[in-house]
Amino acid sequence: MREIREETVSFAVHDLRQFVTALLAKAGMDEEKSAAVARLLVLTDAMGRRTHGVAMLLLYLKEIQNGTMRTHGEPEVVRDNGITAVWDGDYLPGMWLVEKAILQAMPRAAEHGIAAVAIRRSHHIGCLAALAKIAADQGFVALITNSDPAGQRVAPYGGTEALMTPNPLAFGYPGEHHPVLVDMCASITTTSMTRQKVAEGKLFDHPWLQDANGNSTRDPAVLENTTPRGSLLPLGGQEYGHKGYGLSLIVGALSQGLSGHGRKDAPKRWGGNTYVQVMSPDLFAGGDAFAEQMDYLSDRCRSNKPINPLQLVRVPGDAAATSIAQAQKHGISYDMAVWTGLCGWADKLGVDVPVSP
Amino acid sequence: MREIREETVSFAVHDLRQFVTALLAKAGMDEEKSAAVARLLVLTDAMGRRTHGVAMLLLYLKEIQNGTMRTHGEPEVVRDNGITAVWDGDYLPGMWLVEKAILQAMPRAAEHGIAAVAIRRSHHIGCLAALAKIAADQGFVALITNSDPAGQRVAPYGGTEALMTPNPLAFGYPGEHHPVLVDMCASITTTSMTRQKVAEGKLFDHPWLQDANGNSTRDPAVLENTTPRGSLLPLGGQEYGHKGYGLSLIVGALSQGLSGHGRKDAPKRWGGNTYVQVMSPDLFAGGDAFAEQMDYLSDRCRSNKPINPLQLVRVPGDAAATSIAQAQKHGISYDMAVWTGLCGWADKLGVDVPVSP
Repeated sequence: MREIREETVSFAVHDLRQFVTALLAKAGMDEEKSAAVARLLVLTDAMGRRTHGVAMLLLYLKEIQNGTMRTHGEPEVVRDNGITAVWDGDYLPGMWLVEKAILQAMPRAAEHGIAAVAIRRSHHIGCLAALAKIAADQGFVALITNSDPAGQRVAPYGGTEALMTPNPLAFGYPGEHHPVLVDMCASITTTSMTRQKVAEGKLFDHPWLQDANGNSTRDPAVLENTTPRGSLLPLGGQEYGHKGYGLSLIVGALSQGLSGHGRKDAPKRWGGNTYVQVMSPDLFAGGDAFAEQMDYLSDRCRSNKPINPLQLVRVPGDAAATSIAQAQKHGISYDMAVWTGLCGWADKLGVDVPVSP
Repeated sequence: MREIREETVSFAVHDLRQFVTALLAKAGMDEEKSAAVARLLVLTDAMGRRTHGVAMLLLYLKEIQNGTMRTHGEPEVVRDNGITAVWDGDYLPGMWLVEKAILQAMPRAAEHGIAAVAIRRSHHIGCLAALAKIAADQGFVALITNSDPAGQRVAPYGGTEALMTPNPLAFGYPGEHHPVLVDMCASITTTSMTRQKVAEGKLFDHPWLQDANGNSTRDPAVLENTTPRGSLLPLGGQEYGHKGYGLSLIVGALSQGLSGHGRKDAPKRWGGNTYVQVMSPDLFAGGDAFAEQMDYLSDRCRSNKPINPLQLVRVPGDAAATSIAQAQKHGISYDMAVWTGLCGWADKLGVDVPVSP
């Protein structure tokens, strides 16, 4: 194994994909779903979004083992009028489900300009930017929002009781060299960042949470280890968190309201509701006109005089594109903690662990 | 005139509507447009969004006088496939144009689930929440985004040169008692708030702008009165402004990319590009299912234990609904400075000034 640093091991993208596919397949997931989830988890790591990549397998494999992530079957089509649709995902793998929704929506958008799918009761959908990239790579504009009605981590602005999830939102569109990929959530920080800080015993640099009394704090433990529990602050924090709160309601309406499933149903298992919308610039003012305006805007952003001369202004998606190119060339490295966990599963499931190039 | 405080005068909603309609009509705007713009400006004041209400007339009447806001005619339909459309607004009154787009999109959404109009070269569209309310009042979900490619007020995250506008986004959906209306922008504060602070000679409470070197500041003058000029900070400020920057690009792609007009064209006159999207919950999981989930969420927000026991948690749109009820009962009051300006125009155009009830 090629060692990047002492505590990491590195593998070729192709080998990782095969390894992850095999782990999922041996755990019981059908071929198509295993391949899709593996491809997207590895892509996520390649993009540099490490909290949502192959490390998620450690959780996914447990979910499969518990029977709480379904491994076979199709979503139930609750409604479909040819342009908009509602699916019940029955806790099938979220990445596979959303990719399927995008693949359905793209030809519809190519014909009608716009198409949407609201998916209820999916399992975890992973990195939204990796999913938006599927449509943006094909010349489409994509909006993806997600919420988990089983989770309570963000209080409404001015409140103290965690009620909503971070409610992520991704938006992708084609760019001159690579897609522009916006991926953000309606809270300042995320569940996975908070868990990471707790695990490392570290504080956040800024007060991005609040305790149960509404005092803002840098301590991630208020979300995980205190009673009564605190919450993640909405985007804008205590200064202007009505904006993050508003964004959270938008994500909620699209993913829960339109899919007809949400907090009222009080689900207790890990999952998510997702709204997927695809648009074709060709059916609006034209793909060339879109590119002309948006590439110009991207160029003007990148050439904007930076605050720090050593840190040029980037367009969302730039770092991911660089990271993907690096991953293709040098492979992707993993912390030993994550890798050891995966090797444990490989051993248990009888899957060969890849060898470093 | 009924005096609310010494410096304000108050008028009945109906009288205000008539007055504003007459001012616009006498300034040369056709009947339908005058009535629509008047109705929406007065509604905006009734909702409590005072920076974007009847006070805007002082600017609009000047624009009409200068020939930079068109008063007659229809938008050019650049493209229309029955579900999505692109209009060239030719600097017709923005509120009238967007209402027209919503009125076209609602029956389309009722038939197909979703419909959208991208409008290039509109004039100012005013308060986005007042526009989203039109669709939400009829049971639809509405998304409206707007940007002005002639304005430079927000730098991309990490940059120092103002490039984008605050890029507002509104989202409305039906609620049990009144619509939920989210209306926010991708910067922390707005152009009109900044101008107001400059006029009052006041600083912001928090550093919501940055100077030309990228130092964050509470001083609104950096945007208006300094050379080189500063900028409004994106949502998230210097801590996590990549989120506001991302949101700004989303608004830009929808309003400029899809409409095929933007910064590349370097327009020099006040205007805006707008994206209007309407969805029918009936064509997704159903209006009842939507209401069940979203009303439940609203209730859970309102009953959330507040940080300050005297300040209950609100849902966006609650304050507007209360304000509208108050305005219907007690009328709307205006600062003498604004009212005197309007009286000057009334005198000039030969319009009777209303009498207070």
